[in-house]
Amino acid sequence: MIPLTDSQVTRDGKALILAMDHGLEHGPSADFGSVPDTLNPEKIFETATHDAVTCLAVQKGIAETYYPSYDDDVNLLAKLNGTSNLWTGEPYSPQNWTVDYAAELGADAVGYTVYSGSNHECDMYEDFRDIQERAHREYDMPVVMWSYPRGQGLKNDTKESVIAYATRIALEIGADMAKVKYPGTRESMEWAVKSAADMPVVMSGGSKTSDYEFLSSVEAVMDAGGSGLAVGRNVWQRDDPERILDALEKVIFEGATADEAL
Amino acid sequence: MIPLTDSQVTRDGKALILAMDHGLEHGPSADFGSVPDTLNPEKIFETATHDAVTCLAVQKGIAETYYPSYDDDVNLLAKLNGTSNLWTGEPYSPQNWTVDYAAELGADAVGYTVYSGSNHECDMYEDFRDIQERAHREYDMPVVMWSYPRGQGLKNDTKESVIAYATRIALEIGADMAKVKYPGTRESMEWAVKSAADMPVVMSGGSKTSDYEFLSSVEAVMDAGGSGLAVGRNVWQRDDPERILDALEKVIFEGATADEAL
Amino acid sequence: MIPLTDSQVTRDGKALILAMDHGLEHGPSADFGSVPDTLNPEKIFETATHDAVTCLAVQKGIAETYYPSYDDDVNLLAKLNGTSNLWTGEPYSPQNWTVDYAAELGADAVGYTVYSGSNHECDMYEDFRDIQERAHREYDMPVVMWSYPRGQGLKNDTKESVIAYATRIALEIGADMAKVKYPGTRESMEWAVKSAADMPVVMSGGSKTSDYEFLSSVEAVMDAGGSGLAVGRNVWQRDDPERILDALEKVIFEGATADEAL
Amino acid sequence: MIPLTDSQVTRDGKALILAMDHGLEHGPSADFGSVPDTLNPEKIFETATHDAVTCLAVQKGIAETYYPSYDDDVNLLAKLNGTSNLWTGEPYSPQNWTVDYAAELGADAVGYTVYSGSNHECDMYEDFRDIQERAHREYDMPVVMWSYPRGQGLKNDTKESVIAYATRIALEIGADMAKVKYPGTRESMEWAVKSAADMPVVMSGGSKTSDYEFLSSVEAVMDAGGSGLAVGRNVWQRDDPERILDALEKVIFEGATADEAL
Amino acid sequence: MIPLTDSQVTRDGKALILAMDHGLEHGPSADFGSVPDTLNPEKIFETATHDAVTCLAVQKGIAETYYPSYDDDVNLLAKLNGTSNLWTGEPYSPQNWTVDYAAELGADAVGYTVYSGSNHECDMYEDFRDIQERAHREYDMPVVMWSYPRGQGLKNDTKESVIAYATRIALEIGADMAKVKYPGTRESMEWAVKSAADMPVVMSGGSKTSDYEFLSSVEAVMDAGGSGLAVGRNVWQRDDPERILDALEKVIFEGATADEAL
Repeated sequence: MIPLTDSQVTRDGKALILAMDHGLEHGPSADFGSVPDTLNPEKIFETATHDAVTCLAVQKGIAETYYPSYDDDVNLLAKLNGTSNLWTGEPYSPQNWTVDYAAELGADAVGYTVYSGSNHECDMYEDFRDIQERAHREYDMPVVMWSYPRGQGLKNDTKESVIAYATRIALEIGADMAKVKYPGTRESMEWAVKSAADMPVVMSGGSKTSDYEFLSSVEAVMDAGGSGLAVGRNVWQRDDPERILDALEKVIFEGATADEAL
Repeated sequence: MIPLTDSQVTRDGKALILAMDHGLEHGPSADFGSVPDTLNPEKIFETATHDAVTCLAVQKGIAETYYPSYDDDVNLLAKLNGTSNLWTGEPYSPQNWTVDYAAELGADAVGYTVYSGSNHECDMYEDFRDIQERAHREYDMPVVMWSYPRGQGLKNDTKESVIAYATRIALEIGADMAKVKYPGTRESMEWAVKSAADMPVVMSGGSKTSDYEFLSSVEAVMDAGGSGLAVGRNVWQRDDPERILDALEKVIFEGATADEAL
Repeated sequence: MIPLTDSQVTRDGKALILAMDHGLEHGPSADFGSVPDTLNPEKIFETATHDAVTCLAVQKGIAETYYPSYDDDVNLLAKLNGTSNLWTGEPYSPQNWTVDYAAELGADAVGYTVYSGSNHECDMYEDFRDIQERAHREYDMPVVMWSYPRGQGLKNDTKESVIAYATRIALEIGADMAKVKYPGTRESMEWAVKSAADMPVVMSGGSKTSDYEFLSSVEAVMDAGGSGLAVGRNVWQRDDPERILDALEKVIFEGATADEAL
Repeated sequence: MIPLTDSQVTRDGKALILAMDHGLEHGPSADFGSVPDTLNPEKIFETATHDAVTCLAVQKGIAETYYPSYDDDVNLLAKLNGTSNLWTGEPYSPQNWTVDYAAELGADAVGYTVYSGSNHECDMYEDFRDIQERAHREYDMPVVMWSYPRGQGLKNDTKESVIAYATRIALEIGADMAKVKYPGTRESMEWAVKSAADMPVVMSGGSKTSDYEFLSSVEAVMDAGGSGLAVGRNVWQRDDPERILDALEKVIFEGATADEAL
Repeated sequence: MIPLTDSQVTRDGKALILAMDHGLEHGPSADFGSVPDTLNPEKIFETATHDAVTCLAVQKGIAETYYPSYDDDVNLLAKLNGTSNLWTGEPYSPQNWTVDYAAELGADAVGYTVYSGSNHECDMYEDFRDIQERAHREYDMPVVMWSYPRGQGLKNDTKESVIAYATRIALEIGADMAKVKYPGTRESMEWAVKSAADMPVVMSGGSKTSDYEFLSSVEAVMDAGGSGLAVGRNVWQRDDPERILDALEKVIFEGATADEAL
């Protein structure tokens, strides 16, 4: 594990990762219909210059085209794999970007999704191995695992035991941070954080909810010992992304409650 | 993304790609029965010397044999993958030509077909990754994606949301231009163009239609913000390819309507 | 395409390829029962010294063992892939011989079978790509494609449209010569030759028939613009291979009819 | 085979391997619910400093993070493969850690699980081949095989003939030590040890049992000519791991009976 | 083909290969129950020092451990692939040992099993290609093919036409010697030997039979033009392996009949 305290992914050991790869994962019509201007990646890069945001997670094509204009103001978390939701097979996510090219484009960290429980789990662990060793050994670059148990045999993928398993897998096979779904309660999140030992855990933002509901779950994550949040739609699908980022900054970095932050 | 403004693929930011790989994709009897002389690739290369044509897309064997005589007058878009329609499996298209050899033969850009939604989507993304990184990093050569969602689970592959998804996938995983099917209306094409942000989008010509119908769809594409056309049968299956190229030049590069151009 | 006029595969632009890999493809009992002495490859190499034969196509083990004694008198077409007929899966033919080793053993050209329409079509195109680029780029060595559409979905693999497709595929993906089955009529063969543009096409000899029937089909191939013949059983299953080679020489290289040649 | 007598894996030719990869193999909720503090790997590393422990087997992420603080006091057996139990396919275990990186992190030996009898047996033998040759030829580093016959067609995987087969496979394909399940009786264990010839065999500890039952099986293994034990839950799921390690030291290294050791 | 006359595999052009990989292929309980001391590989190496034995075929782990003590007295045939019989899939046998490491350990030749007719035939031909080219081109080392047609579609794998096919495949794809099952009669063996042309053929010993029956089949093989025998159980499952080796020496190298040899 590369300690993230010296990295660009966190500030004071906490992270607010802004993510925007929904155009690939869900398609423009599904997630951008209400915010069509956000299809222009410059809008997201502008949002990512907000002080609260520790880094921005995007796919290769977006980084290659827009990051050169923002590399002074935005830290880049290169999301190396991704797939469309047109695919109907067992969960898998191909590597679309090499570690070498991510480093060349100035990435501060790399990210990779693993679907444990899928028929492709083993393929993904092997892809992850090569990515992790390349990132650590050649570039001293942290690796964030999107750890999402999913596939045949898994009924409820946000169950306490599943989310704890997700963070533990990330720790054992060499991630430096795990991004997991919220398991529903602060107690379950505590178990997931404890299972990760010294590896920081962030919550995945998920689909858009009300300000209060969203901030309350972030508050619970922080109380449970979590290290922050990776968020997309709950920021950029809002009319005023700055306002929710202001609130998130208070909850994540200043220890405010949801009530205090709003 | 490599800006195409400085490339041979476009002129004034617009493209008219002449394509001829139908002998491989559909077979000579299907597409050349009415124009048997066109089976001689020299005929296509001659057609490609028309001022309207920004580049010619062909397979390796054709380029290797005929391009040396035309490299002063024709820009080459090396179509790297392709398959026969004798194959009955889930959509896939193997890479028949390496980026290195395309560059050696003088290609100005490379092209690659991706069938998102196919059971082979992930394999194709991985092939595309290697091609894109080789082309960009070693040769500073643009990559055009034939982005055709197709395969089990897809019913209507020219639906608005599907074509917009097609352009967005191309942008996110690193293409410099996307070639997509016409989604039927100017409004749908606008959404596809918007989903591509700064990446240019061209329409795929498809099977032969009347002059007016064809030019009208090109006009709609240009009005929707599209960057032009990739066309095969609608040019070389015509008795007088020069005449339709004259008209296309007006619509694509001079802003004429279909009516004005004819 | 490497022009074959300067190669050892043709003479005056025409080819008579003697082939002997039937021990691998069909087994000794199936094809050599009536001519057991021919199991000794020296017998074939002796036959290949006949003036009419432009080159001999054999597998690696045969070439490695017997070609050193005949390299002054026989040109070698290294058949790189092959499989037994004990295999019951979809048509595929693994590569048993690398281009590098074929070149080291003195091959004048390489040959590779492609089964378009098979579930393994894509794998074979990819194997062919590597072989073709290695042969062309490293050794300036021609590549002959045994182009045999076959597999699920194909009912009649000698139909006119199928044989024309076979020659066109070979041209587009980079072969220098195609070997195809006889489509039954001179007119169909003309269409196959036209579909190949400038790439020479030879007929595959097939199973043994009468002298007249066999020579008549060769005559039709030559009349249709074909470049000759690749033949095995119709030569070495005969009591007097020299006699049929004499006749073939007349039909292929001297423009004789079957009647004149006999 | 690399003789283990000079290695860090054994002492006086005997081994007590402490293993902790259950967070990956079984999940934190399954095996750590009763001992949550053990989720902190430092606790295991502390336990591994006990004199009885010859080496500690963990996954890459654990070793990378915690081994640097313990490399003077603990010998590292790098467990190179592992998988989650969320996966429902035929038994397989992907390689999560390369030999090169294990060596770089200071590993004294590497470990790899093989499921003979699985549909993936052949893949695992091939992975094992590369690991074994890299470890032996480049680093002179011993390889311990977790040899667990498992998969379709195997009903009782602790049958005498199966466990003996497990040790023999390890010997023949090049392991330096085999870790196998206890076949139930001392006589069966003797057959397994004899089948391994000069290669040492250790028993896998399995799920937690009573002190006496557990130590009796270890005693039987030693009496049968076994070389010791690889143990996880039967040590760290106990309230007082030191106490059972004291007893194990007596049985394994001093020839005590279970009765004497307690 | 590398002529074996100058190799360590034969003496006077004839071979008696002692084989011992049954612990991997069949398991210790199946083949060693009656001769448990033979599980110690030193016993086999001692047996292999008998003058009649031209070389010993074992797996990597056995060679690595025991061959260094016997390399002056025993010639090593490195058996590169092998699998357990716990596996229930279509016949395949993974490569457990690289040619490079076999050469490093002092192997005089390498051996590889091919199951023509299996769904994995093509994979095995490709593995064989790499092994053969590496052995021939880098080390001038002969390659013995265990040529065993087997798999779906094959009913009787010792039929005359199948065994002849087995030897022919070995010749055509580049083996230097084939090891095949006895086809039942001297006449059938003659056809198999003739199909192999100049490549030597040895019989596979098979399961233990009476002295007379066993020696008679060897006599028939020699009379049929065969080059000898590869034998395991029929030697080391006997109470007195030396006695049968004395007899085999007479039949194989001195032209004795079974009657004379006993």
